Amino acid sequence: MSKDATEDMLVTYHELNGDIEELYEDPSPLDFMRFVARNRPFVVRGGCSTWPAMRKWNVAYLKETMRDIPIKVAITPCGSVSSIHRLISITRALNVFKAMPTQRSETQNDNLRGEYMSLHKDLEPDIRFASIALQRGPDAINLWIGNSHSTTALHRDNYENIYCQILGSKEFVLLPPVETACVNEQFLPGATYSNTMEVTLDDPLVQVPCAIWDPDGPHENSTEFSHLSRPIRVTAGPGDMLYLPACW
Amino acid sequence: MSKDATEDMLVTYHELNGDIEELYEDPSPLDFMRFVARNRPFVVRGGCSTWPAMRKWNVAYLKETMRDIPIKVAITPCGSVSSIHRLISITRALNVFKAMPTQRSETQNDNLRGEYMSLHKDLEPDIRFASIALQRGPDAINLWIGNSHSTTALHRDNYENIYCQILGSKEFVLLPPVETACVNEQFLPGATYSNTMEVTLDDPLVQVPCAIWDPDGPHENSTEFSHLSRPIRVTAGPGDMLYLPACW
Repeated sequence: MSKDATEDMLVTYHELNGDIEELYEDPSPLDFMRFVARNRPFVVRGGCSTWPAMRKWNVAYLKETMRDIPIKVAITPCGSVSSIHRLISITRALNVFKAMPTQRSETQNDNLRGEYMSLHKDLEPDIRFASIALQRGPDAINLWIGNSHSTTALHRDNYENIYCQILGSKEFVLLPPVETACVNEQFLPGATYSNTMEVTLDDPLVQVPCAIWDPDGPHENSTEFSHLSRPIRVTAGPGDMLYLPACW
Repeated sequence: MSKDATEDMLVTYHELNGDIEELYEDPSPLDFMRFVARNRPFVVRGGCSTWPAMRKWNVAYLKETMRDIPIKVAITPCGSVSSIHRLISITRALNVFKAMPTQRSETQNDNLRGEYMSLHKDLEPDIRFASIALQRGPDAINLWIGNSHSTTALHRDNYENIYCQILGSKEFVLLPPVETACVNEQFLPGATYSNTMEVTLDDPLVQVPCAIWDPDGPHENSTEFSHLSRPIRVTAGPGDMLYLPACW
Protein backbone atom coordinates (compact mmCIF):
# COMPACT_ATOMS: atom_id res chain seq x y z
CA MET A 1 0.00 0.00 0.00
CA SER A 2 1.33 3.46 -0.86
CA LYS A 3 2.25 6.03 1.80
CA ASP A 4 -0.70 8.23 0.84
CA ALA A 5 -3.17 5.35 0.97
CA THR A 6 -1.92 4.29 4.42
CA GLU A 7 -2.18 7.87 5.71
CA ASP A 8 -5.69 8.20 4.27
CA MET A 9 -6.74 4.95 5.88
CA LEU A 10 -5.44 5.99 9.32
CA VAL A 11 -7.00 9.45 9.20
CA THR A 12 -10.34 8.15 7.90
CA TYR A 13 -10.45 5.35 10.46
CA HIS A 14 -10.07 7.82 13.31
CA GLU A 15 -12.62 10.20 11.83
CA LEU A 16 -15.17 7.40 11.57
CA ASN A 17 -14.53 5.95 15.01
CA GLY A 18 -13.33 8.24 17.77
CA ASP A 19 -12.89 7.32 21.43
CA ILE A 20 -13.85 4.26 23.44
CA GLU A 21 -17.51 3.84 24.39
CA GLU A 22 -18.28 3.86 28.09
CA LEU A 23 -21.32 1.88 29.27
CA TYR A 24 -22.92 1.80 32.71
CA GLU A 25 -24.70 -1.52 32.37
CA ASP A 26 -24.06 -4.77 30.50
CA PRO A 27 -24.70 -4.56 26.76
CA SER A 28 -27.31 -6.90 25.32
CA PRO A 29 -25.92 -9.81 23.26
CA LEU A 30 -26.93 -7.86 20.12
CA ASP A 31 -25.21 -4.69 21.36
CA PHE A 32 -22.12 -6.74 22.14
CA MET A 33 -22.16 -8.32 18.69
CA ARG A 34 -22.28 -4.81 17.16
CA PHE A 35 -19.01 -4.01 18.96
CA VAL A 36 -17.51 -7.34 17.79
CA ALA A 37 -18.59 -6.64 14.21
CA ARG A 38 -17.03 -3.16 14.31
CA ASN A 39 -13.96 -4.53 16.13
CA ARG A 40 -14.25 -1.71 18.70
CA PRO A 41 -13.54 -1.81 22.44
CA PHE A 42 -15.87 -0.64 25.22
CA VAL A 43 -15.74 -0.40 28.99
CA VAL A 44 -18.63 -1.27 31.32
CA ARG A 45 -18.16 0.76 34.48
CA GLY A 46 -19.13 -1.50 37.39
CA GLY A 47 -19.66 -4.42 35.00
CA CYS A 48 -18.32 -7.01 37.46
CA SER A 49 -19.02 -5.05 40.67
CA THR A 50 -21.52 -7.62 41.97
CA TRP A 51 -19.19 -10.60 41.61
CA PRO A 52 -18.38 -12.40 44.90
CA ALA A 53 -14.65 -11.82 44.22
CA MET A 54 -15.25 -8.07 44.60
CA ARG A 55 -16.04 -8.35 48.32
CA LYS A 56 -14.02 -11.49 49.13
CA TRP A 57 -10.62 -11.06 47.49
CA ASN A 58 -7.74 -9.50 49.42
CA VAL A 59 -4.18 -10.59 50.21
CA ALA A 60 -5.19 -12.62 53.32
CA TYR A 61 -7.96 -14.41 51.45
CA LEU A 62 -5.69 -15.28 48.49
CA LYS A 63 -3.01 -16.65 50.85
CA GLU A 64 -5.56 -18.68 52.80
CA THR A 65 -7.36 -20.08 49.76
CA MET A 66 -4.26 -20.86 47.73
CA ARG A 67 -2.15 -21.98 50.73
CA ASP A 68 -1.11 -25.42 49.53
CA ILE A 69 -1.07 -24.86 45.81
CA PRO A 70 2.18 -24.02 44.02
CA ILE A 71 1.72 -21.32 41.39
CA LYS A 72 3.85 -20.29 38.47
CA VAL A 73 5.18 -16.75 38.61
CA ALA A 74 7.35 -14.62 36.36
CA ILE A 75 9.65 -12.18 38.09
CA THR A 76 11.63 -9.87 35.84
CA PRO A 77 13.55 -6.64 36.26
CA CYS A 78 11.58 -4.74 33.63
CA GLY A 79 8.18 -6.28 33.12
CA SER A 80 8.55 -8.79 30.34
CA VAL A 81 6.15 -11.69 30.46
CA SER A 82 8.59 -13.88 28.55
CA SER A 83 10.68 -15.07 31.45
CA ILE A 84 11.23 -18.36 33.21
CA HIS A 85 8.22 -19.28 35.32
CA ARG A 86 8.97 -20.47 38.82
CA LEU A 87 6.74 -22.66 40.94
CA ILE A 88 6.37 -21.09 44.40
CA SER A 89 3.62 -20.64 47.00
CA ILE A 90 1.29 -17.67 46.71
CA THR A 91 2.45 -16.48 50.17
CA ARG A 92 6.03 -16.33 48.99
CA ALA A 93 4.93 -14.78 45.71
CA LEU A 94 2.93 -12.03 47.40
CA ASN A 95 5.76 -11.31 49.83
CA VAL A 96 8.43 -11.15 47.13
CA PHE A 97 6.06 -9.06 45.16
CA LYS A 98 5.46 -6.57 47.98
CA ALA A 99 9.12 -6.28 48.91
CA MET A 100 10.77 -5.96 45.52
CA PRO A 101 10.47 -3.32 42.86
CA THR A 102 10.03 -6.10 40.36
CA GLN A 103 7.15 -6.86 38.12
CA ARG A 104 5.17 -9.97 38.07
CA SER A 105 2.64 -11.61 35.83
CA GLU A 106 0.84 -14.88 35.78
CA THR A 107 0.66 -17.67 33.29
CA GLN A 108 -2.06 -17.32 30.67
CA ASN A 109 -2.99 -20.94 30.17
CA ASP A 110 -6.57 -20.85 31.51
CA ASN A 111 -5.10 -20.66 35.00
CA LEU A 112 -8.43 -19.94 36.75
CA ARG A 113 -9.58 -23.39 35.75
CA GLY A 114 -6.11 -24.77 36.52
CA GLU A 115 -3.86 -23.75 39.40
CA TYR A 116 -6.29 -21.08 40.68
CA MET A 117 -9.36 -23.33 40.53
CA SER A 118 -10.13 -22.65 44.20
CA LEU A 119 -10.70 -18.97 43.35
CA HIS A 120 -12.88 -19.68 40.31
CA LYS A 121 -16.04 -20.02 42.42
CA ASP A 122 -15.79 -16.32 43.34
CA LEU A 123 -16.47 -15.28 39.74
CA GLU A 124 -19.77 -15.26 37.92
CA PRO A 125 -19.89 -18.58 36.07
CA ASP A 126 -20.49 -16.79 32.81
CA ILE A 127 -20.35 -13.37 31.11
CA ARG A 128 -23.82 -13.83 29.72
CA PHE A 129 -23.91 -11.21 26.97
CA ALA A 130 -20.72 -12.62 25.44
CA SER A 131 -21.59 -16.31 25.79
CA ILE A 132 -25.01 -15.77 24.20
CA ALA A 133 -23.65 -13.61 21.38
CA LEU A 134 -20.68 -15.83 20.57
CA GLN A 135 -22.54 -19.09 21.27
CA ARG A 136 -19.72 -20.46 23.37
CA GLY A 137 -18.01 -20.00 26.70
CA PRO A 138 -14.50 -18.59 27.04
CA ASP A 139 -11.55 -20.58 25.65
CA ALA A 140 -9.50 -19.51 28.65
CA ILE A 141 -10.05 -17.68 31.95
CA ASN A 142 -6.89 -16.16 33.39
CA LEU A 143 -6.02 -14.41 36.63
CA TRP A 144 -3.40 -11.67 36.45
CA ILE A 145 -1.75 -10.17 39.49
CA GLY A 146 0.67 -7.27 39.21
CA ASN A 147 2.02 -4.42 41.32
CA SER A 148 2.38 -0.72 40.59
CA HIS A 149 5.50 -1.42 38.50
CA SER A 150 3.81 -3.95 36.24
CA THR A 151 3.74 -3.09 32.59
CA THR A 152 3.03 -5.19 29.55
CA ALA A 153 4.86 -4.54 26.31
CA LEU A 154 2.75 -3.42 23.36
CA HIS A 155 1.31 -6.60 21.88
CA ARG A 156 -1.80 -8.01 20.35
CA ASP A 157 -3.90 -11.11 20.90
CA ASN A 158 -5.77 -12.72 18.05
CA TYR A 159 -8.86 -13.46 20.13
CA GLU A 160 -11.62 -11.50 21.84
CA ASN A 161 -10.78 -10.58 25.44
CA ILE A 162 -12.95 -9.39 28.33
CA TYR A 163 -10.86 -7.99 31.13
CA CYS A 164 -12.46 -7.76 34.60
CA GLN A 165 -10.72 -5.64 37.21
CA ILE A 166 -11.21 -6.94 40.77
CA LEU A 167 -8.68 -5.05 42.94
CA GLY A 168 -6.63 -1.95 42.17
CA SER A 169 -6.61 -0.44 38.73
CA LYS A 170 -4.92 -0.93 35.39
CA GLU A 171 -4.21 1.62 32.71
CA PHE A 172 -4.65 0.45 29.14
CA VAL A 173 -3.21 2.07 26.03
CA LEU A 174 -5.13 0.64 23.09
CA LEU A 175 -4.26 0.79 19.40
CA PRO A 176 -6.59 -0.47 16.66
CA PRO A 177 -5.25 -3.11 14.23
CA VAL A 178 -5.22 -0.50 11.46
CA GLU A 179 -2.29 1.15 13.27
CA THR A 180 0.07 -1.75 12.49
CA ALA A 181 1.91 0.70 10.22
CA CYS A 182 2.57 2.97 13.24
CA VAL A 183 4.14 0.51 15.67
CA ASN A 184 7.31 -0.48 13.81
CA GLU A 185 6.96 -4.24 14.12
CA GLN A 186 10.32 -6.00 13.79
CA PHE A 187 11.51 -9.54 14.18
CA LEU A 188 13.70 -9.73 17.28
CA PRO A 189 15.54 -12.74 18.70
CA GLY A 190 13.62 -14.40 21.55
CA ALA A 191 15.33 -14.30 24.95
CA THR A 192 14.58 -15.25 28.55
CA TYR A 193 15.55 -13.94 31.99
CA SER A 194 17.54 -16.44 33.97
CA ASN A 195 17.24 -16.92 37.75
CA THR A 196 19.93 -14.30 38.21
CA MET A 197 18.01 -11.80 36.06
CA GLU A 198 20.42 -12.05 33.17
CA VAL A 199 19.10 -12.10 29.64
CA THR A 200 19.90 -15.27 27.69
CA LEU A 201 19.11 -15.79 24.01
CA ASP A 202 16.74 -18.71 23.49
CA ASP A 203 18.29 -21.89 22.11
CA PRO A 204 17.25 -22.73 19.43
CA LEU A 205 17.02 -19.08 18.43
CA VAL A 206 13.55 -17.94 17.38
CA GLN A 207 12.59 -14.65 15.73
CA VAL A 208 9.64 -13.00 17.48
CA PRO A 209 7.62 -10.15 15.89
CA CYS A 210 7.72 -7.19 18.30
CA ALA A 211 6.37 -3.66 18.08
CA ILE A 212 9.35 -1.46 18.95
CA TRP A 213 7.46 1.85 18.88
CA ASP A 214 5.92 2.84 22.23
CA PRO A 215 3.01 5.32 22.33
CA ASP A 216 4.40 6.49 25.71
CA GLY A 217 7.70 7.52 24.07
CA PRO A 218 6.40 8.42 20.63
CA HIS A 219 9.55 10.08 19.31
CA GLU A 220 11.72 6.98 19.59
CA ASN A 221 11.63 4.12 17.08
CA SER A 222 8.84 5.81 15.17
CA THR A 223 7.78 5.11 11.59
CA GLU A 224 6.60 7.64 9.02
CA PHE A 225 3.05 6.82 10.23
CA SER A 226 3.50 6.82 14.04
CA HIS A 227 2.37 10.47 14.33
CA LEU A 228 -1.03 9.38 12.96
CA SER A 229 -1.59 6.94 15.85
CA ARG A 230 -4.41 7.92 18.22
CA PRO A 231 -3.92 5.69 21.27
CA ILE A 232 -7.04 5.17 23.38
CA ARG A 233 -6.21 5.49 27.07
CA VAL A 234 -8.61 3.94 29.53
CA THR A 235 -8.19 3.02 33.19
CA ALA A 236 -10.13 0.03 34.55
CA GLY A 237 -10.90 0.46 38.26
CA PRO A 238 -12.33 -2.12 40.68
CA GLY A 239 -15.50 -3.65 39.22
CA ASP A 240 -14.91 -2.38 35.67
CA MET A 241 -15.06 -4.65 32.65
CA LEU A 242 -13.18 -3.91 29.41
CA TYR A 243 -13.82 -5.53 26.05
CA LEU A 244 -10.64 -5.82 23.99
CA PRO A 245 -11.46 -6.86 20.44
CA ALA A 246 -9.26 -9.36 18.63
CA CYS A 247 -6.00 -7.94 17.24
CA TRP A 248 -6.05 -4.72 19.29
CA MET B 1 3.16 -10.25 2.84
CA SER B 2 5.28 -13.16 1.67
CA LYS B 3 4.02 -15.76 -0.79
CA ASP B 4 3.95 -18.44 1.93
CA ALA B 5 2.02 -16.23 4.35
CA THR B 6 -0.56 -15.38 1.67
CA GLU B 7 -0.98 -19.05 0.76
CA ASP B 8 -1.34 -19.99 4.44
CA MET B 9 -3.93 -17.29 4.96
CA LEU B 10 -6.02 -18.44 1.98
CA VAL B 11 -5.88 -22.13 2.91
CA THR B 12 -6.62 -21.45 6.59
CA TYR B 13 -9.49 -19.10 5.76
CA HIS B 14 -11.20 -21.76 3.66
CA GLU B 15 -10.59 -24.47 6.27
CA LEU B 16 -12.20 -22.28 8.94
CA ASN B 17 -15.15 -21.18 6.86
CA GLY B 18 -16.44 -23.48 4.13
CA ASP B 19 -19.54 -22.99 2.04
CA ILE B 20 -22.42 -20.49 2.23
CA GLU B 21 -25.03 -21.06 4.94
CA GLU B 22 -28.53 -21.73 3.74
CA LEU B 23 -31.43 -20.66 5.99
CA TYR B 24 -35.13 -21.39 5.62
CA GLU B 25 -36.41 -18.54 7.77
CA ASP B 26 -35.25 -15.03 8.59
CA PRO B 27 -32.31 -14.89 10.99
CA SER B 28 -32.83 -13.01 14.26
CA PRO B 29 -31.07 -9.62 14.47
CA LEU B 30 -28.44 -11.31 16.67
CA ASP B 31 -27.97 -14.15 14.16
CA PHE B 32 -27.65 -11.58 11.40
CA MET B 33 -25.06 -9.62 13.37
CA ARG B 34 -23.03 -12.82 13.78
CA PHE B 35 -22.86 -13.09 9.96
CA VAL B 36 -21.91 -9.40 9.72
CA ALA B 37 -19.20 -9.85 12.36
CA ARG B 38 -17.77 -12.86 10.53
CA ASN B 39 -18.21 -11.08 7.17
CA ARG B 40 -19.89 -14.20 5.76
CA PRO B 41 -22.77 -14.44 3.26
CA PHE B 42 -25.97 -16.45 3.71
CA VAL B 43 -29.06 -17.15 1.68
CA VAL B 44 -32.61 -17.27 3.07
CA ARG B 45 -34.64 -19.54 0.81
CA GLY B 46 -38.08 -17.95 0.47
CA GLY B 47 -36.95 -14.93 2.52
CA CYS B 48 -39.02 -12.47 0.45
CA SER B 49 -41.62 -14.94 -0.82
CA THR B 50 -44.48 -13.18 1.00
CA TRP B 51 -43.75 -9.73 -0.42
CA PRO B 52 -46.60 -8.25 -2.53
CA ALA B 53 -44.17 -7.88 -5.45
CA MET B 54 -43.90 -11.67 -5.64
CA ARG B 55 -47.51 -12.07 -6.79
CA LYS B 56 -47.95 -8.68 -8.50
CA TRP B 57 -44.87 -8.13 -10.64
CA ASN B 58 -44.81 -9.23 -14.26
CA VAL B 59 -44.07 -7.47 -17.55
CA ALA B 60 -47.64 -6.15 -18.01
CA TYR B 61 -47.75 -4.80 -14.46
CA LEU B 62 -44.35 -3.07 -14.79
CA LYS B 63 -45.41 -1.44 -18.08
CA GLU B 64 -48.72 -0.30 -16.62
CA THR B 65 -47.30 1.03 -13.36
CA MET B 66 -44.28 2.76 -14.90
CA ARG B 67 -46.09 3.91 -18.06
CA ASP B 68 -45.37 7.63 -17.90
CA ILE B 69 -42.06 7.57 -16.12
CA PRO B 70 -38.81 7.72 -18.11
CA ILE B 71 -36.16 5.36 -16.74
CA LYS B 72 -32.43 5.23 -17.21
CA VAL B 73 -31.12 2.11 -18.86
CA ALA B 74 -27.71 0.85 -19.85
CA ILE B 75 -27.54 -1.22 -23.01
CA THR B 76 -24.18 -2.72 -23.85
CA PRO B 77 -22.91 -5.47 -26.14
CA CYS B 78 -21.16 -7.41 -23.39
CA GLY B 79 -22.68 -6.61 -20.02
CA SER B 80 -20.67 -3.72 -18.60
CA VAL B 81 -22.58 -1.46 -16.25
CA SER B 82 -20.28 1.44 -17.08
CA SER B 83 -22.03 2.66 -20.16
CA ILE B 84 -24.04 5.70 -21.12
CA HIS B 85 -27.47 5.67 -19.49
CA ARG B 86 -30.37 6.52 -21.75
CA LEU B 87 -33.72 7.85 -20.63
CA ILE B 88 -36.49 5.81 -22.24
CA SER B 89 -39.90 4.40 -21.28
CA ILE B 90 -40.08 1.05 -19.55
CA THR B 91 -42.21 -0.29 -22.42
CA ARG B 92 -39.48 0.53 -24.89
CA ALA B 93 -36.86 -0.79 -22.52
CA LEU B 94 -38.64 -4.12 -22.01
CA ASN B 95 -39.22 -4.50 -25.76
CA VAL B 96 -35.61 -3.72 -26.68
CA PHE B 97 -34.59 -6.01 -23.94
CA LYS B 98 -36.72 -8.92 -25.15
CA ALA B 99 -35.73 -8.51 -28.79
CA MET B 100 -31.98 -8.02 -28.54
CA PRO B 101 -29.25 -10.31 -27.29
CA THR B 102 -27.95 -7.39 -25.29
CA GLN B 103 -27.53 -7.01 -21.61
CA ARG B 104 -29.15 -4.44 -19.48
CA SER B 105 -28.78 -3.11 -15.98
CA GLU B 106 -30.34 -0.33 -14.00
CA THR B 107 -28.93 2.66 -12.21
CA GLN B 108 -27.89 2.05 -8.62
CA ASN B 109 -28.72 5.41 -7.08
CA ASP B 110 -31.52 4.34 -4.72
CA ASN B 111 -33.78 4.04 -7.77
CA LEU B 112 -36.66 2.35 -5.92
CA ARG B 113 -37.14 5.55 -3.99
CA GLY B 114 -36.45 7.56 -7.17
CA GLU B 115 -37.63 6.72 -10.66
CA TYR B 116 -39.26 3.42 -9.57
CA MET B 117 -41.09 4.92 -6.59
CA SER B 118 -44.45 3.63 -7.87
CA LEU B 119 -43.15 0.05 -7.44
CA HIS B 120 -41.73 0.61 -3.96
CA LYS B 121 -45.11 -0.03 -2.27
CA ASP B 122 -44.92 -3.67 -3.44
CA LEU B 123 -41.94 -4.37 -1.19
CA GLU B 124 -41.93 -4.91 2.56
CA PRO B 125 -41.17 -1.47 4.03
CA ASP B 126 -38.26 -2.91 5.94
CA ILE B 127 -35.98 -5.95 6.23
CA ARG B 128 -36.53 -6.11 9.98
CA PHE B 129 -33.62 -8.30 11.08
CA ALA B 130 -31.15 -6.03 9.31
CA SER B 131 -32.67 -2.70 10.37
CA ILE B 132 -32.80 -3.79 14.02
CA ALA B 133 -29.26 -5.19 13.99
CA LEU B 134 -27.67 -2.28 12.15
CA GLN B 135 -29.88 0.36 13.81
CA ARG B 136 -30.64 2.04 10.51
CA GLY B 137 -32.58 1.57 7.33
CA PRO B 138 -30.90 0.95 3.98
CA ASP B 139 -28.81 3.72 2.42
CA ALA B 140 -30.16 2.75 -0.99
CA ILE B 141 -32.83 0.42 -2.41
CA ASN B 142 -32.25 -0.52 -6.02
CA LEU B 143 -34.20 -2.42 -8.63
CA TRP B 144 -32.19 -4.44 -11.13
CA ILE B 145 -33.67 -5.93 -14.29
CA GLY B 146 -31.64 -8.14 -16.57
CA ASN B 147 -32.17 -10.85 -19.17
CA SER B 148 -30.56 -14.24 -19.61
CA HIS B 149 -27.46 -12.58 -21.13
CA SER B 150 -26.91 -10.22 -18.20
CA THR B 151 -23.62 -10.60 -16.41
CA THR B 152 -21.83 -8.34 -14.00
CA ALA B 153 -18.05 -8.14 -14.02
CA LEU B 154 -16.26 -9.34 -10.88
CA HIS B 155 -16.40 -6.39 -8.48
CA ARG B 156 -16.86 -5.53 -4.85
CA ASP B 157 -19.03 -3.08 -2.95
CA ASN B 158 -17.83 -1.59 0.30
CA TYR B 159 -21.24 -1.85 1.98
CA GLU B 160 -23.54 -4.60 3.21
CA ASN B 161 -26.01 -5.75 0.55
CA ILE B 162 -29.21 -7.76 0.80
CA TYR B 163 -30.31 -9.00 -2.59
CA CYS B 164 -33.99 -10.04 -3.00
CA GLN B 165 -34.92 -12.03 -6.09
CA ILE B 166 -38.48 -11.37 -7.30
CA LEU B 167 -38.71 -12.89 -10.79
CA GLY B 168 -36.40 -15.32 -12.57
CA SER B 169 -33.13 -16.32 -11.03
CA LYS B 170 -29.60 -15.04 -10.72
CA GLU B 171 -26.38 -16.97 -10.33
CA PHE B 172 -23.80 -15.48 -8.00
CA VAL B 173 -20.12 -16.32 -7.86
CA LEU B 174 -18.84 -15.00 -4.55
CA LEU B 175 -15.25 -14.46 -3.45
CA PRO B 176 -14.27 -13.42 0.08
CA PRO B 177 -12.16 -10.24 0.51
CA VAL B 178 -9.19 -12.39 1.55
CA GLU B 179 -8.99 -13.57 -2.07
CA THR B 180 -7.88 -10.14 -3.32
CA ALA B 181 -4.53 -11.78 -4.06
CA CYS B 182 -6.29 -14.22 -6.45
CA VAL B 183 -8.18 -11.79 -8.68
CA ASN B 184 -5.32 -9.90 -10.32
CA GLU B 185 -6.60 -6.38 -9.69
CA GLN B 186 -5.12 -3.89 -12.14
CA PHE B 187 -5.69 -0.24 -12.88
CA LEU B 188 -7.32 0.03 -16.29
CA PRO B 189 -8.36 3.17 -18.18
CA GLY B 190 -12.07 3.96 -17.74
CA ALA B 191 -14.14 3.80 -20.95
CA THR B 192 -17.79 4.08 -22.00
CA TYR B 193 -19.96 2.59 -24.71
CA SER B 194 -21.29 5.21 -27.09
CA ASN B 195 -24.77 5.12 -28.68
CA THR B 196 -23.29 3.14 -31.56
CA MET B 197 -21.79 0.59 -29.16
CA GLU B 198 -18.24 1.73 -29.75
CA VAL B 199 -15.87 1.94 -26.82
CA THR B 200 -14.56 5.43 -26.09
CA LEU B 201 -11.91 6.24 -23.47
CA ASP B 202 -13.23 8.57 -20.81
CA ASP B 203 -12.04 12.18 -21.00
CA PRO B 204 -10.43 13.11 -18.63
CA LEU B 205 -8.87 9.67 -18.43
CA VAL B 206 -9.35 7.90 -15.10
CA GLN B 207 -7.66 4.72 -13.90
CA VAL B 208 -10.17 2.23 -12.48
CA PRO B 209 -9.11 -0.76 -10.35
CA CYS B 210 -10.47 -3.91 -12.04
CA ALA B 211 -10.11 -7.60 -11.25
CA ILE B 212 -8.97 -9.15 -14.52
CA TRP B 213 -9.05 -12.77 -13.33
CA ASP B 214 -12.41 -14.49 -13.83
CA PRO B 215 -13.32 -17.56 -11.73
CA ASP B 216 -15.28 -18.82 -14.76
CA GLY B 217 -12.11 -18.86 -16.88
CA PRO B 218 -9.57 -19.58 -14.16
CA HIS B 219 -6.59 -20.30 -16.41
CA GLU B 220 -6.50 -16.85 -18.00
CA ASN B 221 -5.05 -13.79 -16.27
CA SER B 222 -4.35 -15.81 -13.15
CA THR B 223 -1.95 -14.90 -10.35
CA GLU B 224 0.24 -17.27 -8.37
CA PHE B 225 -2.63 -17.44 -5.85
CA SER B 226 -5.66 -17.85 -8.16
CA HIS B 227 -5.63 -21.65 -7.82
CA LEU B 228 -6.30 -21.20 -4.07
CA SER B 229 -9.57 -19.35 -4.73
CA ARG B 230 -12.69 -21.23 -3.65
CA PRO B 231 -15.57 -19.37 -5.33
CA ILE B 232 -18.95 -19.84 -3.66
CA ARG B 233 -21.64 -20.44 -6.29
CA VAL B 234 -25.22 -19.80 -5.26
CA THR B 235 -28.35 -19.29 -7.34
CA ALA B 236 -31.09 -17.02 -5.99
CA GLY B 237 -34.51 -18.10 -7.25
CA PRO B 238 -37.85 -16.27 -6.92
CA GLY B 239 -38.44 -15.30 -3.28
CA ASP B 240 -34.84 -15.93 -2.15
CA MET B 241 -32.83 -13.37 -0.21
CA LEU B 242 -29.02 -13.25 -0.28
CA TYR B 243 -26.83 -11.38 2.19
CA LEU B 244 -23.64 -10.12 0.55
CA PRO B 245 -21.22 -8.84 3.18
CA ALA B 246 -19.20 -5.69 2.54
CA CYS B 247 -16.17 -6.15 0.27
CA TRP B 248 -17.21 -9.53 -1.14
